[in-house]
Formats: sequence, structure tokens, C-alpha cells
Amino acid sequence: MLQVIFVIAIAAEAMTAALAAGRRKMDWFGVCVLAAVTALGGGTMRDTLLGHYPLSWVKDPTLLLICCAFALLTIALARFMEQLRWPFLLLDALGLVVFTIIGCNVALEMGQSPVIVIVSGMITGIVGGIMRDVLCNDIPLVFSSQLYATVSIVTGALYYFGLQLNMVHDVVTIATIIIGFTLRVLAIRFNWGMPKFIYHKDLR
Amino acid sequence: MLQVIFVIAIAAEAMTAALAAGRRKMDWFGVCVLAAVTALGGGTMRDTLLGHYPLSWVKDPTLLLICCAFALLTIALARFMEQLRWPFLLLDALGLVVFTIIGCNVALEMGQSPVIVIVSGMITGIVGGIMRDVLCNDIPLVFSSQLYATVSIVTGALYYFGLQLNMVHDVVTIATIIIGFTLRVLAIRFNWGMPKFIYHKDLR
Amino acid sequence: MLQVIFVIAIAAEAMTAALAAGRRKMDWFGVCVLAAVTALGGGTMRDTLLGHYPLSWVKDPTLLLICCAFALLTIALARFMEQLRWPFLLLDALGLVVFTIIGCNVALEMGQSPVIVIVSGMITGIVGGIMRDVLCNDIPLVFSSQLYATVSIVTGALYYFGLQLNMVHDVVTIATIIIGFTLRVLAIRFNWGMPKFIYHKDLR
Repeated sequence: MLQVIFVIAIAAEAMTAALAAGRRKMDWFGVCVLAAVTALGGGTMRDTLLGHYPLSWVKDPTLLLICCAFALLTIALARFMEQLRWPFLLLDALGLVVFTIIGCNVALEMGQSPVIVIVSGMITGIVGGIMRDVLCNDIPLVFSSQLYATVSIVTGALYYFGLQLNMVHDVVTIATIIIGFTLRVLAIRFNWGMPKFIYHKDLR
Repeated sequence: MLQVIFVIAIAAEAMTAALAAGRRKMDWFGVCVLAAVTALGGGTMRDTLLGHYPLSWVKDPTLLLICCAFALLTIALARFMEQLRWPFLLLDALGLVVFTIIGCNVALEMGQSPVIVIVSGMITGIVGGIMRDVLCNDIPLVFSSQLYATVSIVTGALYYFGLQLNMVHDVVTIATIIIGFTLRVLAIRFNWGMPKFIYHKDLR
Repeated sequence: MLQVIFVIAIAAEAMTAALAAGRRKMDWFGVCVLAAVTALGGGTMRDTLLGHYPLSWVKDPTLLLICCAFALLTIALARFMEQLRWPFLLLDALGLVVFTIIGCNVALEMGQSPVIVIVSGMITGIVGGIMRDVLCNDIPLVFSSQLYATVSIVTGALYYFGLQLNMVHDVVTIATIIIGFTLRVLAIRFNWGMPKFIYHKDLR
């Protein structure tokens, strides 16, 4: 089931990235690359940092083709996208939570420490979006927007400690997905964010 | 022969990167770093993603020194560079094609699947330029300009399928270089590009 | 002793990065991420490029927590930061030199060549700041500011050749720290920089 949601999440990430590419007037190739980087960049960064080879899309290149297919589909369907704002936000929220859990699982299988398990989940969940924003020449949205990375951290922590309590794996997974997803949706709906740090002086 | 063109291509990439650095008023050190990142960044990204260690420039640091030497030479010769526009574009086109073939070879030697062989060639060909543009705070040119990545993909595909047909390796290599190079030069000359995706609405 | 200075340097890097995040109005999470990337990014890049796993912060996640703690401390103490300009510049100079030596040591233990030892030190010393600037959407400061990378290269070269001369390790380490630190402080004080390369024409 996690696999199915994983592919749905990749498709959703690819589609939102394609729209970001369109806002920057990229060509079809740029749209595909930005989609693939956004959807697969988090897992790629995690595996590179943990030395966990081969990377998922190298082992299974279908993932790359899925990204390109949904990116091109987005171009074809661009004029309907505006009505799909909420479905996308929901799929993106689901993707964040599922990416996080998958990232935690990779670190758990490698026998990493609790902090690294949670960080591994967070990197998987958020780094793709950071790469998208850097390539679009924006300051990453995740550093100043509604709760997003925090949702990933909370999700990872719940998942890790749920498993430590020897609860049934599937129960922990499903409960974590529901809690993380709900938290993210509430954060969007009520515009919850972390407090901001605003500093005006130039030290150098 | 591929090795010789490889070094020429690295030198050409280093020199165009040095001019980009000069446009950003970087100091001599920045010029050298940007040159090395641009010329060697594609191969570095490929090897990091494929877990193919040691990296080429770690095994043979002369490559780093070549980049710095040609970067500094560019500073010395800056006033003549404008007359060299076409030679540079031709060397850059040759470099793109040769980098692509070398990237394909690395993936082939690792026994990767066809998609990954072609992607490996493309990463080797285009990622250095993407890194240059990110460090110069630009949106990567390759996402919106004349056929460039597409040339790399076509080159990689021709090379891969040529080898699959059991043709003589050198014939495939030379034919691929000629076709890829010609395609790129025609794309510059006639301003061929992929169609662009332009999207104005802000989904978030 | 190197370990103690290493942790002090990480804390100092984290704090200056937190101020940079505050200038971009990031939230508390963004402040922590930028602090960790800046303080640990150089070593992470070095280890990824050299294939030197596990990464230091994966092996010892306390480093991540130190970065977050000092980032949050910076938020709490933000109004006093302006008076601390010189202490910070001194700690940053010390950090640059110590990061460089640690980076050289990693490459030396792997039996790398002299050029790679010095490059490894330089990457450890400067890449964190480059990542910080890219994430803040700036052209990296290190490419156009007072001697910084040059200090790192000089430090690495002195360290390497000192060890080659069979001098006592501790003497080489301390002498290198003192010389590198002094050079950096003089560069700030007298605004020493590398010559700049300024180029106005657009080749493409």
C-alpha cells in the first residue's frame, strides 16, 4: 500500500513542479527535469548522504519515466489545473507524510540512530521541494511557509516511537499517516506556521 | 582520441565558465572554482549518483589544474574573447557530445539499464552548466534555451542503440559524435528549441 | 584540542548562518536547517566527493543538535549580536582554519595526493558558506570578498608540506592555525582581496 501511495505522491510532486517550471517559462525538457528533481530529489539526497546505493531511480528507472509522463500530462492539462488546487494540496500533504515514512524506513533498515531516522525522513520529505526552489531561483518556500518540515519531523518522530513501543507495524504506519496528513491539512487551512526570525542588521 | 577531445572540452567549458564568472565580477579564485565546477561538475554528479568512486578528478587531480590554468588564461585573454564566439560554441558543442558518450560508457561498464545509460550521459553533459548557473544566481539556461539537453539525449540514445546493434565501437562513437555535433550546431544556427510551457497562475 | 575548536567553530558557523536566515525572514525551522547546512555542509560535501562514509553527523548526530541549539540561541540573543561582530569574525576565522586542517586530515588518512589533500581542506572550509549563500539566493560571498578561500588553500598547503618535512605533528598543526588565522584577520582588517575579473560582454 505504501508503494502505491508512494507512486501517487511522486506523480503529484511531479505535477506541482511542472506548474512551477511553467511559471518560469521553461521548455518541455526543463519541465521534465524539474519534475524528476522535485519528486525524486529528496530520496536521492537521503541515499547519497547515507551512502545507500543504488539509488531508487537507478534501480528502477520507471520512476523517472513516471515523472516525465506526469510532467507532460500537466502541460496538456494546464488550463484545468486551477480548479485542482485542493486535490493537489491534499496529494502533496499525503506525499510529504509517505515520503517521510519511507525515508525513516531506509534509515531504520541501516540501523541508524533515532535522530538520523527522523532526519532521514525529513530529508526525504522536503529536499525535493528545496531543489525545485533553488533551480527556480527562489528562496526555498519550506523555510518560511506554513508548517511543512515540522509536519515531517512530527510524523517521523511518531513513527519511530510507535515502532519502539512494539505496536503492530501496519497500525503505526496508518496512524502516523493519518495524524501527519491531518496536521498538514490543518496547517494549510488555518495558516499555521513556525514563528519567524527577522533580523535587519548586516553583521559583515 | 576520446581522451584528447575530453581534455579539450574541459578546457572549453572552463573558459566559458570563466567569462560567466567575469560577468559576475568574481575574483580570480571564484573564476577558478566556477571553471572547475562547470567543467567537472557533470561527471562528479554522475559518479556520486551512481556510487562510482573514486571521482575522475580525485583519481587524476591534473584535471583540476587544467581547469584553473584555462580559467586564468581566459582572464589574460579576455579582450580577444569576443572574436572567438563561434570557435567556443563549436568546442562547447563538441564537449557536450563527448561528455555524453563518456557518461554513457561509465554507466555501461557498471551494467546499468538503457534508461540509466542515457540519463548518465545527459547528466555528464548538462549538469556542469546547471551548477554554473545556480552559483551565478541564474535560472539554468539549459531549461529554456536552444536544443542542448535534447542533443545529449539523442546522442546517448544513438550511441546506446548503435552498440546494441553490434556495430564496431569506433564507428558508433565517431558517427554519434558527428550526428550529435551537427544537431547542436544546427540548433544554434537556426535557433531550434523545445516548445516552452508557460503558466501564469499561482497555485498556492 | 582540534575537536574542541571544531565544536566551537561549528557553533560559530551556525550562529552566523542563523543571522543570515533572519535577514531572509526565515522561520525557526529554516534557521536551524540553514545553520546545520552551513556548519556541516563543507564536511558533508568533502565526504560525499571522497566516498568517505559514514558522514560525521550521521555517525555523531549530536553535531546536528549543537547546530540547532546555537541557531535558536542566536534568535534569543539577536539584539546583542551587533556588538559581537569582531568576536564572530575571529571565531569564523578560527573555524575556517580548523575546518581546513580537519579536511586535510581526512584526505591524508585516505592516502590521497597532495592536490586532493589541499582541495579537501578547502572544500571543508568554504563549501558550507557557499551552500548558505545559494539557499539565501545570493551569489556566494566567497567568490568576490576578502581573502577567504585563499587562506584555506595557504593553510592546507602549509599543513601538508609541514607534515612532509617530518616536523612534529602538533607543532605543524599549531603553527598552521596561527599563520592561517593571522592571515585571515589581516585580510579582514586591511580588506585584502584577490584581484577581480570583470567582463561585460555577453558571449552567447
